[in-house]
Amino acid sequence: MSSHFQRWMKETQANVEGALIQYLPDAKHAPEKLHQAMAYAVLDGGKRVRPLLVFAAAKLFDAPSELVSRAACAVEMIHAYSLVHDDMPCMDDDALRRGKPTVHKKYDEATALLVGDALQAQAFLVLSEASACADHKLPMLQLLAQASGSIGMCGGQAIDLDSVGIALDLPALEHMHRLKTGALLRASVLLGAMSGKRLDENEMHALDRYSRAIGLAFQVVDDVLDATADSATLGKTAGKDAADNKPTYVSILGLDASRELAQKLCRDAHEALTIFGESAQYLHDLADLIVQRKA
Amino acid sequence: MSSHFQRWMKETQANVEGALIQYLPDAKHAPEKLHQAMAYAVLDGGKRVRPLLVFAAAKLFDAPSELVSRAACAVEMIHAYSLVHDDMPCMDDDALRRGKPTVHKKYDEATALLVGDALQAQAFLVLSEASACADHKLPMLQLLAQASGSIGMCGGQAIDLDSVGIALDLPALEHMHRLKTGALLRASVLLGAMSGKRLDENEMHALDRYSRAIGLAFQVVDDVLDATADSATLGKTAGKDAADNKPTYVSILGLDASRELAQKLCRDAHEALTIFGESAQYLHDLADLIVQRKA
Repeated sequence: MSSHFQRWMKETQANVEGALIQYLPDAKHAPEKLHQAMAYAVLDGGKRVRPLLVFAAAKLFDAPSELVSRAACAVEMIHAYSLVHDDMPCMDDDALRRGKPTVHKKYDEATALLVGDALQAQAFLVLSEASACADHKLPMLQLLAQASGSIGMCGGQAIDLDSVGIALDLPALEHMHRLKTGALLRASVLLGAMSGKRLDENEMHALDRYSRAIGLAFQVVDDVLDATADSATLGKTAGKDAADNKPTYVSILGLDASRELAQKLCRDAHEALTIFGESAQYLHDLADLIVQRKA
Repeated sequence: MSSHFQRWMKETQANVEGALIQYLPDAKHAPEKLHQAMAYAVLDGGKRVRPLLVFAAAKLFDAPSELVSRAACAVEMIHAYSLVHDDMPCMDDDALRRGKPTVHKKYDEATALLVGDALQAQAFLVLSEASACADHKLPMLQLLAQASGSIGMCGGQAIDLDSVGIALDLPALEHMHRLKTGALLRASVLLGAMSGKRLDENEMHALDRYSRAIGLAFQVVDDVLDATADSATLGKTAGKDAADNKPTYVSILGLDASRELAQKLCRDAHEALTIFGESAQYLHDLADLIVQRKA
């Protein structure tokens, strides 16, 4: 990764942090405790992979910055709400997230439930209130709703729930992850690009291929890290999947083949970007980042 | 209430049931268990007060029926998701809803959590996919997001959580209910009217006044019923508010003054409708229904 990319990434992460503060409800405004807990769930410590994808894809075309920024915050709010609900005792029962107590530990379970619910609504609100024209925003809102719901992220989590202790084969595991994490990563890429213009079939196909590759790579690397890194590095409880007897790429393919698969998916992601030329440089570098990350 | 209104209500409730089936994800489509649980949460047994308000308000102007139907389903899905999450052990811990086991009892807590999350996304999806033009739908999506989120329904629930055991005064109790139940009832009325046309200031003001009155009346009657009816009639656990030491209109005003307040609010709702003439007849009758209901 070039130092130029590294600088862009840091700048973008800082911009995203500022935008999230701007687009979250004011924590001084009632109901204060809920608003504080929403900010606690969203701010500080995330890698902001999804917002980075939005901003990188926005470079493909000439996208208005306010719309890009709102789209980035919307996907990050959806992601953050899913983590809050995922961490609850009835789901993964996790006490640690990004190195901090999870929302239900810091506050209580009822607050965590409401924080997630309110963040989802806030995501749609933030995107719907962009200054772009309605024709421009509406397909973006539809995409966000599809990617978040029962045939997207929530559906993937439901399949994941039902797969504990079951010997999923590779296609079934892939299907689960394509919904659970892939749908929102894909939405991030498409929302960034759609902020600039209505996509034609070729562009949509190329970005779909890119998204699919980085989505799977993301999960493969997650499984590798879960099996090899420690909790302090990850900022969350490591080794949980194995302990929960959940199927993973590592448990099905082994460690070496999983690492090779991640490399292959990264090359596939790069190839998919060819039609965009140099404007896809940040998307190219983000594929590298996703595969090379250590946490 | 006239037999004409009764007939319209029955027809509309049947239409809503059909529309909900149409706009819920197909339960035969994966993930099947999640989709079945979403249908379980939404179908059969609700009074459909919010959809009735949408359809009644749609009579004010010449609203396209598909948009009205989608708006009605969207608010009902938001309402249904809030009930599923509300009933969970970390919130009200209720085993009975509309006379049936609550979602977390019928399935499990993790499924209930995901059902609520997915229903919220589905609500935005259903409204966003209406065939009306983007300019027409966008303010409706914004309103739905505002009414559902932290300064609407979720915010009201957060204030409610923090008020257990606290001696709320009447204005504080009113503020809580204006968010918790009032925001979505108001959204129902406005979405129905907005399906027909962009509202001018007078129309907005009149519908706001109507919504505020029926929203409070709804809650006052809820409190009266909770204090006087039995669980079998209500289809949910009666007397819970008193048992939980939650402030209610009955605990603050007493039973007689609460009943009088409901009547006064009903008259206020009727007055607010004057500018609409006969086109507001169903909204007029729904105010009566809300105050006279026995469950």
